[in-house]
Amino acid sequence: MSDNSDNVIKCLDKGFVRLVDSMGGDNAIVQAARVSYGKGTSKLSQDRGLIRYLMRHRHSTPFEMVEFKFHCKMPIFVARQWVRHRTANINEYSLRYSEARDEFYYPDPKHIQFQSALNKQGRMGEVTPELKQKVQDYFKEISERSFEIYSELNQAGIARELARSILPVNLYTEWYWKNDLHNLLHFIGLRSDSHAQYEIRVFSDAMAESVKSVAPFAWEAYQDYIIKGMRFSRIEQSLLERTLPDRVIDDINEDIAYQLTATLHSNKPREETDLYPLYIKEGGVDSEEDFKLKWDSGEIEIGNVRELREFKLKLESLKN
Amino acid sequence: MSDNSDNVIKCLDKGFVRLVDSMGGDNAIVQAARVSYGKGTSKLSQDRGLIRYLMRHRHSTPFEMVEFKFHCKMPIFVARQWVRHRTANINEYSLRYSEARDEFYYPDPKHIQFQSALNKQGRMGEVTPELKQKVQDYFKEISERSFEIYSELNQAGIARELARSILPVNLYTEWYWKNDLHNLLHFIGLRSDSHAQYEIRVFSDAMAESVKSVAPFAWEAYQDYIIKGMRFSRIEQSLLERTLPDRVIDDINEDIAYQLTATLHSNKPREETDLYPLYIKEGGVDSEEDFKLKWDSGEIEIGNVRELREFKLKLESLKN
Amino acid sequence: MSDNSDNVIKCLDKGFVRLVDSMGGDNAIVQAARVSYGKGTSKLSQDRGLIRYLMRHRHSTPFEMVEFKFHCKMPIFVARQWVRHRTANINEYSLRYSEARDEFYYPDPKHIQFQSALNKQGRMGEVTPELKQKVQDYFKEISERSFEIYSELNQAGIARELARSILPVNLYTEWYWKNDLHNLLHFIGLRSDSHAQYEIRVFSDAMAESVKSVAPFAWEAYQDYIIKGMRFSRIEQSLLERTLPDRVIDDINEDIAYQLTATLHSNKPREETDLYPLYIKEGGVDSEEDFKLKWDSGEIEIGNVRELREFKLKLESLKN
Amino acid sequence: MSDNSDNVIKCLDKGFVRLVDSMGGDNAIVQAARVSYGKGTSKLSQDRGLIRYLMRHRHSTPFEMVEFKFHCKMPIFVARQWVRHRTANINEYSLRYSEARDEFYYPDPKHIQFQSALNKQGRMGEVTPELKQKVQDYFKEISERSFEIYSELNQAGIARELARSILPVNLYTEWYWKNDLHNLLHFIGLRSDSHAQYEIRVFSDAMAESVKSVAPFAWEAYQDYIIKGMRFSRIEQSLLERTLPDRVIDDINEDIAYQLTATLHSNKPREETDLYPLYIKEGGVDSEEDFKLKWDSGEIEIGNVRELREFKLKLESLKN
Repeated sequence: MSDNSDNVIKCLDKGFVRLVDSMGGDNAIVQAARVSYGKGTSKLSQDRGLIRYLMRHRHSTPFEMVEFKFHCKMPIFVARQWVRHRTANINEYSLRYSEARDEFYYPDPKHIQFQSALNKQGRMGEVTPELKQKVQDYFKEISERSFEIYSELNQAGIARELARSILPVNLYTEWYWKNDLHNLLHFIGLRSDSHAQYEIRVFSDAMAESVKSVAPFAWEAYQDYIIKGMRFSRIEQSLLERTLPDRVIDDINEDIAYQLTATLHSNKPREETDLYPLYIKEGGVDSEEDFKLKWDSGEIEIGNVRELREFKLKLESLKN
Repeated sequence: MSDNSDNVIKCLDKGFVRLVDSMGGDNAIVQAARVSYGKGTSKLSQDRGLIRYLMRHRHSTPFEMVEFKFHCKMPIFVARQWVRHRTANINEYSLRYSEARDEFYYPDPKHIQFQSALNKQGRMGEVTPELKQKVQDYFKEISERSFEIYSELNQAGIARELARSILPVNLYTEWYWKNDLHNLLHFIGLRSDSHAQYEIRVFSDAMAESVKSVAPFAWEAYQDYIIKGMRFSRIEQSLLERTLPDRVIDDINEDIAYQLTATLHSNKPREETDLYPLYIKEGGVDSEEDFKLKWDSGEIEIGNVRELREFKLKLESLKN
Repeated sequence: MSDNSDNVIKCLDKGFVRLVDSMGGDNAIVQAARVSYGKGTSKLSQDRGLIRYLMRHRHSTPFEMVEFKFHCKMPIFVARQWVRHRTANINEYSLRYSEARDEFYYPDPKHIQFQSALNKQGRMGEVTPELKQKVQDYFKEISERSFEIYSELNQAGIARELARSILPVNLYTEWYWKNDLHNLLHFIGLRSDSHAQYEIRVFSDAMAESVKSVAPFAWEAYQDYIIKGMRFSRIEQSLLERTLPDRVIDDINEDIAYQLTATLHSNKPREETDLYPLYIKEGGVDSEEDFKLKWDSGEIEIGNVRELREFKLKLESLKN
Repeated sequence: MSDNSDNVIKCLDKGFVRLVDSMGGDNAIVQAARVSYGKGTSKLSQDRGLIRYLMRHRHSTPFEMVEFKFHCKMPIFVARQWVRHRTANINEYSLRYSEARDEFYYPDPKHIQFQSALNKQGRMGEVTPELKQKVQDYFKEISERSFEIYSELNQAGIARELARSILPVNLYTEWYWKNDLHNLLHFIGLRSDSHAQYEIRVFSDAMAESVKSVAPFAWEAYQDYIIKGMRFSRIEQSLLERTLPDRVIDDINEDIAYQLTATLHSNKPREETDLYPLYIKEGGVDSEEDFKLKWDSGEIEIGNVRELREFKLKLESLKN
């Protein structure tokens, strides 16, 4: 257990995310996976490879072995979106038990935007300074007036649980929030997405910083295989199959044969004379002469053997 | 599947609970339990007995086999408590996607009360009519003014997801909410309790009506064994052991011996001559003469054999 | 609620899957989504479109509003994989409470295969009839001998919970299993996959039949967007970007412009003279003459407007 | 994070429980509760008091803030009961991917018992040495023969996922198992209970040792309020109400008045002259003379003020 009491990241005008504690990291993912999938070696580079393999093939349970606990402060309307992630454990500040505090979210002018016409859940466009000022004035008016009333009712002795119902959802609340890495990544995948509301994205991005430092390989793999990839539906795939010339696919596969050869050679260096046969074995079709020319050009990148092979299979499946 | 579109129960001033659909009932509990615990017979009375046995011994999984789906409309501050029950499935009205509607909760005067001094989460006492009027005026003021501003910002084209942040938590929202019977009973146990906030209790009580009609035996058993019972902690129990005279326990056990005899006789009638031996076997210590006298008085109630035996064991354990 | 007591699908040599009950279907998905995303119209074709939109954009909560309950009988080693899906509710036959029954899984000869060399979790290749016979004999030997011993210990009065520990994992067990559609689809996605063990795939495929008949649109959308699609990782995508000629992408996009035009025309028929301008607006670059030629060929398929637009964006992003 | 690699507790003949890691302890419970219920002071004694209050009133969320991760090795039939606790995260040794190891559970003679006649899920009574020997021989026979066959099929190249199906459920498996304290306590409550099967109780008791050392106050409170207490159902309660003489209740309450006085005096020492008035205020009815006599006897224990008051209320409610 480590108490990371200084890891505070400020969010919006008065909120924050603070990593309170965490359990495990990349090592814990590897440790758990090795119970399921056997021992193997444990060099750092192999840890990374194993984590990437697990992520690529959606073996999610080892990622559940890492746990994060955050202390967060955010507007109620953000908390309302956040709480829908049901695997988390939560302890929130209670307005039945404690008095509300005079802290409201006022949007920064640059985040005051118009309703998006395209995206029913988004914003867009530049608002005039006058309208921005009006929005800010209104936020201030409602926040201050509602807190004034709340305070007066409170002093008159009205039950807190009732008086609080006139407070607006830009009031700040706070909580302890604990979740495992698998579900935290899923949260970040949804809430750091460009379609998420700006005000929750800020908090999601802040938690992402903790993930990056506690489990850097897992973070990298999540980006590479889940977030940044590209997915084609069955319909799109069949369009691709119909329209992508086989010749183009063959060209790409030829590139892959070179890249595979270079990668295998890099992992375990071969004799000069073994390189062309290796390239042929990996599906290359260039003549030995052409092979040498291209090989010596020094332009061939190396990659990951498994991924290159999987990519080849996908491309083959797109052929007519 | 049954679409119970008329089962609307009004809650608070503008809310409701509507049972949209349900799957299974007492029969489904019995059906599932019989897979685990063997076939047995299936008379209605035995179904009730089995359900009560399951509840008494906290065999909760068969109760998870019954499912309820409700359409509900409630103030946001109620939804915020409600959503903490994490096993439920929820689809809520989205203020990012749709416009807010001008519907706010105004408390009825009789529910405007003072903060409880004893219970930090409760209310108590009678508030003066003047103060009640003031509370109502303030609710109206904030609700109307915030909606006026919201509408103006909306018309000016400001993004809905931002404009909504000045709306107070007494705004009504609505959702579809689906949960299994075990977790629904747990919800009702907590939220229909006298310590729950009045405004959520109303909704919990409304859902309880659905449970009563869909799974009446399960409801009854939940009341008898979970809600209405009495629990003594280890400390209290040791005080009882020290202070409760054994003589008193013997008296109660004597009553139980009569009640057991009557119950067994009622379940399977005996010859007159077999009754006293049965009573002795059940731990009775009265003479045959006394037994006859008391037996003929007609004052002996019948109960449930298993429960009476369990009660006897508990009492014995309180003896010094 | 509907009791579908005849829906039994036999699985393996002695197992089965039976849909006991279900709640909701495609309609329930639409109903729940409309609470979140607004009313709109409700023609059947629009229901399908909405369900496909929800699936494509991973809006999973409406799919949780549909519930399935199955009665299943399977070997213990299958049950052990199955039970790892934690959102389900389960009541299993108890070998502490009830006696084991003499029912063991004997694999059909055609499913007796070698360990896959490529896939550490798979099988492959044709086994000789002699070895197949040996496997079958061994299964029979262990099953019969262990049950013989179990029965003898049972008759000698040894506790069932202990005696059962010598029974092999090919013994059949049974349970009631209840889950919501979202999680059931996830189960089927994993367990009907070609990498899943044959013996659980059979059960997964059987449950898929129920999904197909209870929620056909949801099933179709799950196939089109989750199962049958193709995903490229960040690495693969960058290889595609580097190697796919822009010219090829332009060709595909040209096809899409025709398909979009045809689809829009099909949804809302246009005047003849409005077709070419529409095609241009959708990004077509052919001359009007070429357009007419191709248009009149009758070879242009129609699709879904949103999907075609999304596909176009993806292809554009692959350009250098 | 702390790697407790030496915390191995042996269980059964070849199994173990090892605390791999934990996050938080009593302090984390208090920390989370204080976000919800306000700051207060933080003396150690007050931490204990707060934890006991939370447990007594079933405020379970703060207990979810503590996390445990264990490495465990147990027979498959134990794992099958264990896995039904669905909140846990699990990574288990895979017999599809890895070869089975020759490790089977052989019960110690003293745990070979007869089937209980009373409890369908239990064992009882002393088995003859001859029968014990027979049980042990049979366990050995099936375990050795099944492993012999498994090894032969394995060497012949038969797929591991198929060959393993003839292995009995007393084969050892292992896993990483992670859960939060609230759910771990629930597990221990059920599985360390005398009605649980002996073979899982051993593992539950081993994990209990970790809880005791990581969160001693929480453990103590769980014992006092959940495990060791006594619960009376509505029916039992009404029998108590009818049969427990009010006089006896008054006697107990009189004892409580003394105990309350002593406790308050111990918490905040009073002047001699203030003790009797305090006692009267707490509901005492003895004369001042009697009070002094009893007080000076030195036999009055001290307790917890809140608990004593709650106990008094319960007893009052039992009066006719």
